[in-house]
Amino acid sequence: MNYEKILIIKAGGGKQINWDYICQDVASLKEKVILVHGANWKMEEVSKKLGQKTKMITSPSGYTSRYTDKQALEALTMVYSGLVNKQIVAKLQALGVNAVGLSGIDGRIWEGEWKKVVLSKEGGKTKAIRDNFQGKVIKVNDKLLRLLLENNYLPVLTIPAISFENQVINIDNDRAIAVMAKALGIKKLVVLFEAPGLLKDVEDKKSIIKNIQANKIEDYLKYAQGRMKKKILGAKEAIQAGVEVVYWADGRVKNPIKNALKGKGTVIK
Amino acid sequence: MNYEKILIIKAGGGKQINWDYICQDVASLKEKVILVHGANWKMEEVSKKLGQKTKMITSPSGYTSRYTDKQALEALTMVYSGLVNKQIVAKLQALGVNAVGLSGIDGRIWEGEWKKVVLSKEGGKTKAIRDNFQGKVIKVNDKLLRLLLENNYLPVLTIPAISFENQVINIDNDRAIAVMAKALGIKKLVVLFEAPGLLKDVEDKKSIIKNIQANKIEDYLKYAQGRMKKKILGAKEAIQAGVEVVYWADGRVKNPIKNALKGKGTVIK
Repeated sequence: MNYEKILIIKAGGGKQINWDYICQDVASLKEKVILVHGANWKMEEVSKKLGQKTKMITSPSGYTSRYTDKQALEALTMVYSGLVNKQIVAKLQALGVNAVGLSGIDGRIWEGEWKKVVLSKEGGKTKAIRDNFQGKVIKVNDKLLRLLLENNYLPVLTIPAISFENQVINIDNDRAIAVMAKALGIKKLVVLFEAPGLLKDVEDKKSIIKNIQANKIEDYLKYAQGRMKKKILGAKEAIQAGVEVVYWADGRVKNPIKNALKGKGTVIK
Repeated sequence: MNYEKILIIKAGGGKQINWDYICQDVASLKEKVILVHGANWKMEEVSKKLGQKTKMITSPSGYTSRYTDKQALEALTMVYSGLVNKQIVAKLQALGVNAVGLSGIDGRIWEGEWKKVVLSKEGGKTKAIRDNFQGKVIKVNDKLLRLLLENNYLPVLTIPAISFENQVINIDNDRAIAVMAKALGIKKLVVLFEAPGLLKDVEDKKSIIKNIQANKIEDYLKYAQGRMKKKILGAKEAIQAGVEVVYWADGRVKNPIKNALKGKGTVIK
C-alpha cells in the first residue's frame, strides 16, 4: 500500500467543529485516512457536571499547563476515547465507512514518556507534583494501524496514550501525529479548527495567510494567538518528521477537507 | 487458526470483580481469548456524579427493564467503552498482552435491532416511549475480530452496539456473546461473576451446583436470583449457538479463569 497517499486528518474538539461535515467529506474521499480527534469542549462540559475543576500547574519559569490528576485522567478517558470517539465512529459507519475507534493505549499505538515529577509554583512556594499524568509520545507502534488500513478499516484515534512503564497518560495530539506520520511515511496532514486558517489579523477573516514556506514557519508565531501557537509548533514538528504538506482549514463549514486540500485555508509546505 | 480452542471470557461489572486477577490469568493462558466486560458498578457511580437517575420501564405485562434514554446512552458509552474498557486494556498491556479495546460500534462488530417503540405503564396509563435506545444483537461482523486474533491481538469488547439503521444502542452482552460464538465457531465460554457458581442455597457458599446438563438448564431457573436468571438464559442461548461448554465461576478470587476451567464453579455442557 502507498502510504504517501494516505491523509492524516486531525480535527479539534471545539464546540463549533462540525462532525457531520467532516465525516461526510471523509466518506467521499478517494484517499485512505487516519482520523485523529480532540474533545475539549465536551470534556469541559462533562467535567463541570462531574464537579471537577480544571487545575493548572505553573512551572518555576512561569509556564502554565494543565494538571491531569487521576480524576481528570479518568474524565478524559471517558470523554475522548469513550463518548466522542464512538459518536464519530457511529457517524462514519452511518455513511458506509468501516471506522474503528481506538485510543493510544490500544495495541500500544501511542507509547511514550510519563513526566513523573513536575515542579509547581504556588503562592511563592515550589512543590513537586507526582500525580500529573502528562507525557509525550516517543514511539508509534504502527503494526495495528497498518493492519487496519490495509484491510479497509478507517482508524479513528484519540488520547490517552500509554507510557513505557504502562501508565495511562495524557499527551499532546500534535506531537503524536508527527511521530505517527514518520512511522508510517505519511506525507499529507490536514488540521481542522475553528478558524478559516491562520489570520494576519484575528478580527479580519479575510486576512488568511494562504501559503507558508515550511522552513520559515516560526516567523509566523507572531500572528498566532493562544492554541494557534501550538498548532504552528505541531506543524513544524510534522514537517521535521517528513510530512511534505500541512493544510490548516475551517472545521465548521461544509466540505472542510476538500476545501483544505484545495488550499482554501493555510498551506504549509 | 483453530477457533474451537479460543475462549470467550465474560466478566461482569460488579464492584468486587477483581480485574488484576482476571488480567493476570488471561496473560498466563495458552489459549487465545476474546474478553467481554461489563461496567455496571462504575456506571452507577458516574451516573450518580452526573446527577442522572436510573430510570426503569414497566411493560403492560408487568416486566421491568432499564430505560436507556439519550443521557443514559451517553453515560454508558463513556463508562463502558471509555473508562473501564481502557483501564482493562492498560492492565493487559502492562502484563505484555497486546490488547485492543473495542465497542460493538467499531467495525460494526455487534450489529442489531433497535426496538424503536416500547410501551410503558405509568400509574395506570400506558404510553409509548420512543427514546429508549435498547436493542439486541442479530449479526456479528466477525472480520475485524478474526483479523485481530490472527495477528495476536486480544480483543476487549463491550457495549454499546450499533443498529441496522446506525443508531447506537444498548444491548445485552449475553446474547451478543452467543451470536459471536456462533459466527466464529467458538466452543468454550467462561462467565465470571460475584459468586462461586450457581448455588442451591444463596446463603450457603458450599452449595455449588457443580454440573448442569445443557439440555436441562432451564430446570435450574428455580435456584437463580435476580441477574442469575439472565445468566441461565444466556448460557442456554450460547449452547443453542453451538458452544459446547459454559463455565461459571468466581471473578473475585485469584486465578478465576483457571479455576473455572478446572470445574471449581458450575460447568454446563
